This record gives sequence, C-alpha cells and structure tokens, in this order.
Amino acid sequence: MPIKSRIRTIPHYPKQGIQFRDITTLLKDPLGFRIAIDELVNRYIGQKIDKIAAIESRGFIIGAPLAYRLGVGLVPIRKPGKLPAETVGHDYELEYGRDRIEIHADAIAKGEKVLLVDDLIATGGTAEAAASLIEKLGGEVVECAFIVDLPDVGGRARLETKGYKVHALCTFEGD
Amino acid sequence: MPIKSRIRTIPHYPKQGIQFRDITTLLKDPLGFRIAIDELVNRYIGQKIDKIAAIESRGFIIGAPLAYRLGVGLVPIRKPGKLPAETVGHDYELEYGRDRIEIHADAIAKGEKVLLVDDLIATGGTAEAAASLIEKLGGEVVECAFIVDLPDVGGRARLETKGYKVHALCTFEGD
Repeated sequence: MPIKSRIRTIPHYPKQGIQFRDITTLLKDPLGFRIAIDELVNRYIGQKIDKIAAIESRGFIIGAPLAYRLGVGLVPIRKPGKLPAETVGHDYELEYGRDRIEIHADAIAKGEKVLLVDDLIATGGTAEAAASLIEKLGGEVVECAFIVDLPDVGGRARLETKGYKVHALCTFEGD
Repeated sequence: MPIKSRIRTIPHYPKQGIQFRDITTLLKDPLGFRIAIDELVNRYIGQKIDKIAAIESRGFIIGAPLAYRLGVGLVPIRKPGKLPAETVGHDYELEYGRDRIEIHADAIAKGEKVLLVDDLIATGGTAEAAASLIEKLGGEVVECAFIVDLPDVGGRARLETKGYKVHALCTFEGD
C-alpha cells in the first residue's frame, strides 16, 4: 500500500470526531507522489480524454500533473468569484447550508470527454456539482478520480447512483 | 511567444483599472501547458532541488507537475486554517490590511534546497512571506519561479532586493 501508508490521519480535525486524511505527507514524498500520479496516468492514458477538470484546491495538485502527462488541457473548477472570465455556476446543498462552484463558460467544448479529479471523495456533494457543471457545458464526464475514498460517508455510492463512474486509489473505512 | 500569447487579459478585473492576466487559457491548451512546465523542468532539472513549495492555489497547478517531473516532493503553502497538522505561519502587509500564510512545520527539513513556485508575481508580498516560511523551517530558497511577471508592480525588484533569485516565463508591462 505505497499510497495509503503515506497518508497521515489527523484525529478530530477540523472538528471533534472527524478523522482527517491528510495527503500532504504523500505529496512531499517523491516516490509516493510519483506512484499516485502514475497509477492514474496508467488508468487513463488509453481512454481518449480531452480535458481534466480539477476541483479547487487540492484537486489541482492531482489534476495538473495528470493533465501534463496525458497531454491534455487542465480546467479549474473554483469557488465563486475566483475565475475572472464568464462563468457557469452550480449551487448545491451542504450538511449545514449551501455552497457554489464555478467553471469558465469556455473551458470545455461540446462533446469533449472530461475526467473529473479531486484529492478525496467524502459526501460527494462538490463532485456531483462539478460533474453537473461539466455537463452544462456539453462535456461528457468519463469518470471521477480521487486519491482517497471515504465510503462510509457515501460519496461514491451517491455518484454511482447518478450514473457516474468513480475510481479511487485507496479507501479509508471506519475510524 | 508560445506562453504569453496563450494568456488572456481580462480588463478591469477584479476592479476598475486592473488588467488581470488569466492563465486558464494557457492551462486548457495542452501544448501551452506542456511548454510552460517543460521550460521550468529544463531550467531546474540539474539544480539538485529537494522540494517544490507551491503557493495556494494557482501555484499548485504549476508546482505539482514540476515536482512530478523533477522527482521531488511538493509542499503546499496555504491560507490560515487549511493545513491540518502543526503549522508555522507568517503575517504580512497588503496594500489594505494584513494577510497570513502557513506551511506544515514538518514540510521541509533543515538544509533542503527549495524552489518556490506561484503562477504570477505582482507586488511580491505573498512570495516574500512564503520565502520567509521556507527559511523559518531551515530550508534554502534556491529561486522563486513564476509563469507571469508584472514588473510595473515591483515584486521582482522587491524579492531581488531581499537577495532572492527570480525567474518568470513571461512579462506583461504597462497596460
């Protein structure tokens, strides 16, 4: 488990009862970082992907080297007010309150095959909103790729129920 | 100018009188993105760099593929409260008010040679604070690398006055 063993768990962060899976220990290890990106490269290199859409901001760290290696463009999906040109946005529900993410309106062309990337999937709310944005622009979500899956929180099941394919390099269950 | 020609200028963003240099048009172009990263790889591949420190969040998009290609670890420098383990922080002055950035206390080992990366240098305030963080941990700032330099705003001169080396792939002067 060269990837999972390099991910640090921070107990009770950001609040009591949450075990935070911290990928910075994976990223700072040259071998761990390389293995993680290469596993994704090997999975997607034959899949005729046109764009990588990466979710702010840890998703950028995974999506950018993957886009570089696949030889495709990188599209950032960001919080409101961060993208300077014309955007398309999507509002979504959180456990407490609402949130919104945006994408540049010209980021994806109709019919393009897009891989959605983030570091971790928990509830899947942001990933589902991001997938909706890609589809609003006419893109096809080929798969949603993550370093870490927390299946207990239900994000993978939620995305799969909506018809999206999900891939994660490692899984943390229970506490 | 394969890089500069792919950067879009958004007039009056985020406020009247500012010409915002938008690198998303470079990033979404596979050739532009590749050329930009490869130029940095070619510059730094022989320089015995130990770590890339990348500034949240567009700096992640440049720093991550560069770290991957150089075979070194990536260290994120983030806004307060974003890093889950023990951090070291640095407060710095803005034109109006103050700001703060943080790094994990265990991110850099004493004596490591660190390349600092962000997408753009304007006033240089954040970059200077980031360089101070690297030095607080005992790291040596080998150079500060950017895609875009806005020399009129004075960041390069500010960093150079402090003894840091600065490299940028392209420059936008005046309006």
